[in-house]
Amino acid sequence: MRKGLEVGEAQAIVLEATPVLGPETVVAPAALGRVLAEGVVSDRTLPPADCSAMDGFAVRASELAQASPARPVSLPVVFEVPAGGRAPRPLAPGEAARIFTGGPLPPGADTVVRQEDTEPAGGRVAIRVAPGLGDHVRPAGEDVREGDKILAAGIRLHAAHLGMLAALGRSVVAVRQRPRVAILSGGDELVEPDRSVAGGRIVASNSYSLAAQCREAGAEPVYLGIARDRPDEIERGLRAGLRCDVLLSSAGVSVGDHDHVRPVLEKLGCRLAFWGVRMKPGYPLAFGRLDAEGLPLVFGLPGNPVSAMVTFEQFVRPALLKMAGRVRVFRPVVEARLAEALQKPAGRLHFVRVELARRGAEILATPTGNQSSGVLRSMTEGTGLLVFAAEATRLEAGAVAKVQVLDDEFFAGAEPGI
Amino acid sequence: MRKGLEVGEAQAIVLEATPVLGPETVVAPAALGRVLAEGVVSDRTLPPADCSAMDGFAVRASELAQASPARPVSLPVVFEVPAGGRAPRPLAPGEAARIFTGGPLPPGADTVVRQEDTEPAGGRVAIRVAPGLGDHVRPAGEDVREGDKILAAGIRLHAAHLGMLAALGRSVVAVRQRPRVAILSGGDELVEPDRSVAGGRIVASNSYSLAAQCREAGAEPVYLGIARDRPDEIERGLRAGLRCDVLLSSAGVSVGDHDHVRPVLEKLGCRLAFWGVRMKPGYPLAFGRLDAEGLPLVFGLPGNPVSAMVTFEQFVRPALLKMAGRVRVFRPVVEARLAEALQKPAGRLHFVRVELARRGAEILATPTGNQSSGVLRSMTEGTGLLVFAAEATRLEAGAVAKVQVLDDEFFAGAEPGI
Repeated sequence: MRKGLEVGEAQAIVLEATPVLGPETVVAPAALGRVLAEGVVSDRTLPPADCSAMDGFAVRASELAQASPARPVSLPVVFEVPAGGRAPRPLAPGEAARIFTGGPLPPGADTVVRQEDTEPAGGRVAIRVAPGLGDHVRPAGEDVREGDKILAAGIRLHAAHLGMLAALGRSVVAVRQRPRVAILSGGDELVEPDRSVAGGRIVASNSYSLAAQCREAGAEPVYLGIARDRPDEIERGLRAGLRCDVLLSSAGVSVGDHDHVRPVLEKLGCRLAFWGVRMKPGYPLAFGRLDAEGLPLVFGLPGNPVSAMVTFEQFVRPALLKMAGRVRVFRPVVEARLAEALQKPAGRLHFVRVELARRGAEILATPTGNQSSGVLRSMTEGTGLLVFAAEATRLEAGAVAKVQVLDDEFFAGAEPGI
Repeated sequence: MRKGLEVGEAQAIVLEATPVLGPETVVAPAALGRVLAEGVVSDRTLPPADCSAMDGFAVRASELAQASPARPVSLPVVFEVPAGGRAPRPLAPGEAARIFTGGPLPPGADTVVRQEDTEPAGGRVAIRVAPGLGDHVRPAGEDVREGDKILAAGIRLHAAHLGMLAALGRSVVAVRQRPRVAILSGGDELVEPDRSVAGGRIVASNSYSLAAQCREAGAEPVYLGIARDRPDEIERGLRAGLRCDVLLSSAGVSVGDHDHVRPVLEKLGCRLAFWGVRMKPGYPLAFGRLDAEGLPLVFGLPGNPVSAMVTFEQFVRPALLKMAGRVRVFRPVVEARLAEALQKPAGRLHFVRVELARRGAEILATPTGNQSSGVLRSMTEGTGLLVFAAEATRLEAGAVAKVQVLDDEFFAGAEPGI
């Protein structure tokens, strides 16, 4: 087991150890946001036949070359083709057919004239324009041809993909499984949020932050409750999570006398890959795997509320996204101008909670007060984590630094912006 | 009713007509991503008492001013304070107490020495450093004080907020309601995706795209199925959606003989605010409200698959986000370099489906093939909509244009980037 890694080293070890989960088949509407596990090939052609893109009249363009508003050409309207219908017979020379958007072009017709360019009257239509050949006709296969590879394995499914799956008649689809994440809180002082905190007890709030972080990453949290600081309780809790893809314990991986999680993990066959990452908040992070198939991944997260959340961001979230088949597994990083000077000792990378705001073309990053790893409030007010490099000791006000953006909404606009 | 509006005018009319929905109370974990409807004030102090931030020994700093590795100071360890416990009595001068992370500081103690800086032996501890007063002590109220305004109405709830709500003992929370969106597809040619398309029928795929777009916007779709092109079927369908917050019909708002939606809407008391927006795809968009309270908002979307999705993006999505209490209701807009020349007639703003890719500091936008409003496939391959202004007729290859980013993942990284 390695100790005291740099952040980047630790991230690389975690991702290297993280498998992409297998496929599962779900009903298509439930696949929104999931990653396609196999490509989709069309077994149909769309549109299935040449069809009208407008409401109007199906004609032969060559017969209307002389039509103009001054000298409209009048044709008999011999039948009607609704969207869901079909022509009763081919269109003979000199005839027109009423046609509606989506209606299949009758054999013999090659063009549609929009109804705005016509004047229907008593079984005939006067056509006031000379159409181009094929105007307002959607050719068969314009969108999709039978046998086309339509969606590639590995894409993340958005609304347009679900529309396409529906159009192709696919009601179910194979996607990557969502990781299931067991969460165990440890500590004699902890209670659930609905219980009394008399006598100095505190709420196991990490479980709730972590479960929400899982859901934000598209994973499914499985909350195992609170284990007292006793090996048997911790073992029972961790065993309940062994069938999940990831096991998170919060607190209990430090060096204290009461930290029973590490010995229990070892007893369960967990090989720890590292303990301790040179970052703040969040040094006492442990990572390992259970032996057999390498799953679950096991993260022993620090107990401080901010440390737990920040280590989740740096290590757990990318692993969960990779498991689900995602490729862009890291938060957006922007360059921001620092509103006030920061200093720290050299040695550990600090993630400084900042609020981000746009100032013209620039982004301003303002630290959100007390950066103690116990002060969750500064995390609730932050939209980003500013990266204060390990060996740096001072960042001046006005300096430009990299910031991980935690809130996707930061990029959205209160105005259309176009 | 106005006709043929510019995109920006139409967006302003829609948002002006859109109310923010009322509050509802939900269990806190279900509030992730929702907008807080009322501020949260703490009724407790966190931490509730001065407590230890480390595993170590509670001491009086003044007694250890001379301690050093060469000359450690030895103190008797008179009791132990676990995290969930409390001190049996005050610490007398010359004493130390074993203390664990989160344990309340005994009266009389003012400082914690980390166990790494000590050598326990037989009921005593040798302290090798001279601590600063208050070292490793988290003062009572460092995070939250009773009466503090912790979360403001209007914020969107993320993981840290849910952790904070748990820490404050809040199991339920008041948030803005999620809009419910009724979706009706109209057309004699339409079938559901699991049915045969023999005879030129096509799947009502718009309903599936639109439902997914609703879910992406945090709204709840209520799919009303397919109505045939008959006034009674359309009326029955629309009536089923009248209690929703938004009513979407796809197709049926054009000028064709078979377009029964507008007359039915008028019969139901809908006042159309406008019909037609000078954009492509998507001209034939109708927008109005039912009379009484202004809800549901009614959007008659075009029938072409891309037109329906693009008008949803420009008009429906911002309205849904506003209803849910969001402020940044518009998609991110980036400047991108166009990979190939585009041209069009002056008159309508075109939204050109493009794939976005980073090229160093720049973003490259490549149109995704056939831009026909019937070609859903180009929408499945696009991550953005490039804005080709109404009066412009040509954009050269290499020109810089604004692009609405439809895929949040575009900003994420395949590498940590820090």
